[in-house]
Amino acid sequence: MDYTEIAPIMARLWSPLAAVTSHWQGQDNVQIAVAIAAASIVPDRPRVVVQLYKTNHSHNMVLSGGAFALNFLKPDQTNLIGDFGLVSGRDQEKLAEFDTRPGESGSPILSNCYGYLDCLVVNAMDGGDMTCFLADVIGGKTLAEGEPLWWRDARHELPQEWLERWENKQSSEVATSRANMDQISYTSWQPPK
Amino acid sequence: MDYTEIAPIMARLWSPLAAVTSHWQGQDNVQIAVAIAAASIVPDRPRVVVQLYKTNHSHNMVLSGGAFALNFLKPDQTNLIGDFGLVSGRDQEKLAEFDTRPGESGSPILSNCYGYLDCLVVNAMDGGDMTCFLADVIGGKTLAEGEPLWWRDARHELPQEWLERWENKQSSEVATSRANMDQISYTSWQPPK
Repeated sequence: MDYTEIAPIMARLWSPLAAVTSHWQGQDNVQIAVAIAAASIVPDRPRVVVQLYKTNHSHNMVLSGGAFALNFLKPDQTNLIGDFGLVSGRDQEKLAEFDTRPGESGSPILSNCYGYLDCLVVNAMDGGDMTCFLADVIGGKTLAEGEPLWWRDARHELPQEWLERWENKQSSEVATSRANMDQISYTSWQPPK
Repeated sequence: MDYTEIAPIMARLWSPLAAVTSHWQGQDNVQIAVAIAAASIVPDRPRVVVQLYKTNHSHNMVLSGGAFALNFLKPDQTNLIGDFGLVSGRDQEKLAEFDTRPGESGSPILSNCYGYLDCLVVNAMDGGDMTCFLADVIGGKTLAEGEPLWWRDARHELPQEWLERWENKQSSEVATSRANMDQISYTSWQPPK
């Protein structure tokens, strides 16, 4: 299969850009994610499914703490892709200079964003290279009008140097994913008894 | 939490409309789904995450057979929402009058659609009212230009009678989900050892 033949479909299966925040053992962290889907048809019991890659520091904080917040970005917040997406929380406190308050889940909520969902994990599925988290949305609010920020728009606005750093980071992560995703494969799928 | 406060966010976390086809023990089936997300950063190893509700006949076929295809709809195919989404495969052979061929996974591929992804299940997560399937995309092709069909556009084009049937069906499913989703909840979440 040639990926270009399915690229128009796959491009429409990513979510708006979210800063995924977490809090665990006294530390706050944040990363960028675009693999988020709605996961409930009951309006007063909203749920989401969020994929986090195992190499991200946030992954282990969410897995251990069972909580996170999704802070969707506004179109004028492409700078946060660099601040949150191009450095690791292992190396620095990425949220130190941002105005946040703790949500009910304990996760930091960004005061300035398109809107947020405060979430508690209810289940998790191993994807080999990533974990897919199912979570209850226990709080949230839309803070801006119009559209949130989508990667397909953001990429055209990033400085060339950031795009190159993003692509270098992505290449390294693709290599890691390729090595690890086969830990879970259809050759081992068995329907539940 | 007032759902209207997060509605603009949640509305952007649903996918384009897909006819999810499956084949199991000699029977073909199809249902409509909008809870689909991309689930791989490796272009030549595409994956998706798809949620199917347990009350749907397709759910059991996919869980047992470990295979499905996603046939995304074109904007002029709102009629398929009625044909595939308002009746159950338990009652009739919904695909009998449509031109299909079996994909590599065994799942029927619709000849006329926006594009399709042929998928094999690699893992599954219990969501209480639904199962969240992680699947390898083993084949696929985009067959049309422009945008696929999104629910937010489709709902304005459906005949009033279909909308009422859709809403009645949805009300019944919401009641079932409300009763079952607490089987999985954050009060029971434990991080893996």
